This record gives sequence, C-alpha cells and structure tokens, in this order.
Amino acid sequence: MTLSTREPIQLMRLGPPDHERPAVRHRGALYDLLPLTADIDGSFLEADGIERVRAALARKELPMLDDPGDGSALRVGAPIARPTKVVCIGLNYKKHAEETNAPIPTEPVLFMKAADTVVGAYDDVLVPRGSTKTDWEVELAVVIGKTARYLQSHAEALSCVAGYAISNDVSEREFQLERGGQWDKGKSCETFNPLGPWLVPADDVGDVQQLDLKLWVNGQLRQNLSTSDMIFPVAEVVRYVSQFLVLRPGDVINTGTPPGVALGQPDPKPYLRKGDVMELEIQHLGRQRQSLGQA
Amino acid sequence: MTLSTREPIQLMRLGPPDHERPAVRHRGALYDLLPLTADIDGSFLEADGIERVRAALARKELPMLDDPGDGSALRVGAPIARPTKVVCIGLNYKKHAEETNAPIPTEPVLFMKAADTVVGAYDDVLVPRGSTKTDWEVELAVVIGKTARYLQSHAEALSCVAGYAISNDVSEREFQLERGGQWDKGKSCETFNPLGPWLVPADDVGDVQQLDLKLWVNGQLRQNLSTSDMIFPVAEVVRYVSQFLVLRPGDVINTGTPPGVALGQPDPKPYLRKGDVMELEIQHLGRQRQSLGQA
Repeated sequence: MTLSTREPIQLMRLGPPDHERPAVRHRGALYDLLPLTADIDGSFLEADGIERVRAALARKELPMLDDPGDGSALRVGAPIARPTKVVCIGLNYKKHAEETNAPIPTEPVLFMKAADTVVGAYDDVLVPRGSTKTDWEVELAVVIGKTARYLQSHAEALSCVAGYAISNDVSEREFQLERGGQWDKGKSCETFNPLGPWLVPADDVGDVQQLDLKLWVNGQLRQNLSTSDMIFPVAEVVRYVSQFLVLRPGDVINTGTPPGVALGQPDPKPYLRKGDVMELEIQHLGRQRQSLGQA
Repeated sequence: MTLSTREPIQLMRLGPPDHERPAVRHRGALYDLLPLTADIDGSFLEADGIERVRAALARKELPMLDDPGDGSALRVGAPIARPTKVVCIGLNYKKHAEETNAPIPTEPVLFMKAADTVVGAYDDVLVPRGSTKTDWEVELAVVIGKTARYLQSHAEALSCVAGYAISNDVSEREFQLERGGQWDKGKSCETFNPLGPWLVPADDVGDVQQLDLKLWVNGQLRQNLSTSDMIFPVAEVVRYVSQFLVLRPGDVINTGTPPGVALGQPDPKPYLRKGDVMELEIQHLGRQRQSLGQA
C-alpha cells in the first residue's frame, strides 16, 4: 500500500530549547525528519521542504519515533526555528475591537513582537515582574514559506504561506496601553508567544477562513469564534503586510484575536496569575496548554 | 614595540550582503578577523570577542587587509550580523518631541523595527512604493554584548553594552502616523536601518553622553545635537528596556533621534526622494552615506 501524499501532515520540533529535532506526525504516528533536514526553518520551507516530507513519507523513508509527541516524553518546541520576525495584526475581529473600546480598523493595524518570545506549545508562560495585567490571545498564526514583497493579489499572497499554527499572543495590558502609547512594550516579554504544537501545511487545513478558535483559562471557555469573523482575511493580511515590510521564509504573522480576553471582561478583570492554566485549540492545528509562572 | 591594547578599535564586516567577513580597523589600518572568528555576531560578543581582538592585535597575529574600508573596494556591511531584534526608543530628545507635536515622555517610548531592515552604512535606502513621506533619523545605536533581564542599576546596564554604532532609523511618516496608530508600520520597510560603518567598543567612545550627532541631506545640515541632550541616557534606556523584554547579545537599541527631521520642517516638508543623499556622523563612530533609490 502506498501512503497518499495528500493526507494531512503535522510538522513538529522535539527536544530541549535550542536543541529541538525535526519530526513529522502522520496518521497519528511520529517520524524522524533528521534524515531529511537538520531543522524546520525558513530555508527548509523555501526549499520545498514540505513536499520533500510528503515524498519521503510516501516512500516510507523516515524512521518512526517512539514518542507520543504530546510533551509527555520529549518537550515540544515551536514548530518553526528562529523566525526572523513576528508581525501581529491588531483588532482583526470586530467584537474584540469593541470589547477593548478601540475603533473598528479600516485597514489592518500592524505591530511587532520580538521573535525570541516564541516558545513551545506546552512551555510555561511567565508573568513579567511588576505585571498585574497579563492577558491571553488565541490567534491563527501564518508561517511564511516564500519571500514576499509588494504582493499584488490574494492568490499571490496565499502562495507565500507555508502553513498555519496556533499562536498565543500573550499581552501585558498595562505595559501595552498605559506606558507610553506604543503596544510593543506589552507584547515582547519573555515567553509571550507560545507557538504550535504543529505547523500544518496550508494545503492540509481546508478553508483557512472556516477554523474555530477556542481558549480556556483554568477550564473556563473564554474565547470561541471562527476565522470566518476576521475583518481582514489571511490573504489580505499577507498582501497588506507585504506593502510595508519584506516577509521572509519562516516569518510568523499573528492574525489577531477574537473577543473574550481578560481586558474585555467586567471588573475585576481576570488577568493571569502564577498557577493559572491556559488551553488553546484551533481546528486541524492541535491544542496548546501553558501554566503560568512568575518571572 | 607592543601595540597598546587600549587604543580605540573599530569592528567592521566587509563583503557582499550575507557574505561579509569580519575585520578590525586599528590606527587607520584594516586587519582580517577571520583567523579569530567567522563573523561578528552575538555569540562572538558574548564570548569576549572584543577582548580577543585586542589581544590578537597586541600580539600582531592578524593579517593586514588591502582595503581602505570605506566601501570603495569591498562593500561595508552592517558591523553586527543578524541581530535578533532592533528595539527603538521614541522621542528621546525634547526638541524632537516638540517638533513632532508629541508630549515629552515621562518614561521611554518603546517600539520595534524588523531586524532584517539592517543594511550597511553606504547601502542604498529605498523609498517604499506608495511613499511620499520617507524621513531620516540619525541615532546612537547600542549593541548588546550580554543577555540582559530585569537589570537593577545603570552600572549593570552599561556592563551589558558591547559597543556603539551610527544608526539611521529611516521612517515613513504616513505609514507610521496616519495608517492605523502603531508606529511599526512606517519603521520596518526594506533597507530602513543603515547601521555602522563601525561597531566601536564601549570602552573606546569615551563618555557616551557627550557625542555629537549630525545628519546632512544633499549637503545641508539637518540634525546637529549631542547625546547629552537625551531625555533618558543610554544606561537608563538599557535598564528600562530590560524590564519589558530580554536583550540578547547582538541585539540593537536605537536610542532616539534629535530634532531636524523632515516631519518637523515647515511645509512643504523636504521628505526624501530618489536621488537624494543622506550623510550621518557621530563622534568616534565614523560616517555613513546613503543614496535614495526607489523600491
């Protein structure tokens, strides 16, 4: 029997921080990608890495790994190594703009997150020192596969997308909104961007504008909406961002969060504290779980 | 005769983009650093690279290079390879805040620039497509030498600084100020951060709060002030930033620009056009020169 090359795959990186090894999940089993590539990074994606993985799986060339891939054995790292940058879209869901008392944007709001905030899907998230307003944000992350400059069409934009992942755009609201006007100050604290567990190729997620996003804190469902509610869909986000900066293979775009963040709740707002647990889920992209620690 | 190890040195990277080789300038002569390190990057700085360069110079171990180091032979690249991030301080000179009609900040304003905007000191700067308000900003850049988290004192902050360089924090004012509220959109266009030509070790610049900064456009002096006019001095900037994010070896902080940018001029404001030439100078840090091209 030949494996179908179009069955969904999930790319992963397993092992301690900065020493992850590449793996691929297929039909629930985990395979070693080291015979194919030293890592899952921009160069790998740019060099048709995903198609090479499919071909190697079809030819049964990859050794199976004895690991459940859920973090209970080897740690699950972010599914992409060393992104050059993490670009974020603000207020891309109408009700999230409303809950934060921000005007509905007429074009995407763009800001940056330090790329070294990216951690694994099950790693601890640290409440920064001096923080009283650490908040959650489940988001669909776009991982770029080809260099993108001044894209003209949505088709061209989607052709630059390697795949998708779950992102938690953790935010400190006092640092973001009450400390000088620019959001970046509350977006780049250490551990503030859990990513993964999987990078799922764009071909394998179906309609990217029909994915349910969910986030729970301590078991309570806090965010629950669909990517169909985005003001600016993925294709427009990628096209738009490419007018202002160069997107490179391995770069990440966080496409905005639906309503239900702590900032949008009645007082006293349920900001995150040490010991809290966040769980995040997006259809086809797996599930994250982070405990809060204290920096 | 033994060379003094405390004479000023200037670190450089020479060659085509992504293929620069490390070099050091000392008493006007240029020496090859390849025997010592493959590149000047965060790992090199963290591993006491600067002291190793001084020692190798003192022992006359480095081969001399037959290159003037001014870009007329080998291209001059940015003096640090692949910074993980470029953090910027906004409005750090009182008169620049005033000329842009912004309030004087009571604590540093922080924003990010995509790290892959960093180019060499003599590389062309591209006016983005659709831009009518491309502007200049001469700034003192801090290059981080040691990982910095939650620094407590100014002494500790200065001990994390490897050295200094000239930075041109090129900005598109319409993208920055009129397109959605966050500045990042006008700060991360391709080629928007010429850096260098030199990385000068912190020990070799004298008092970092007594450096004259100058910028000319087409020969006309536009910016001319001293780092003594900073609202938040370098030590405070580094200490402050480390409360919000982790600074890593090789990271760059642009510490803000003095008055005299195009945005602050009477109408019609002299924004940059293809063919314009910017020249920038900071005491002890050398001189930059960029021609404007069109993206």
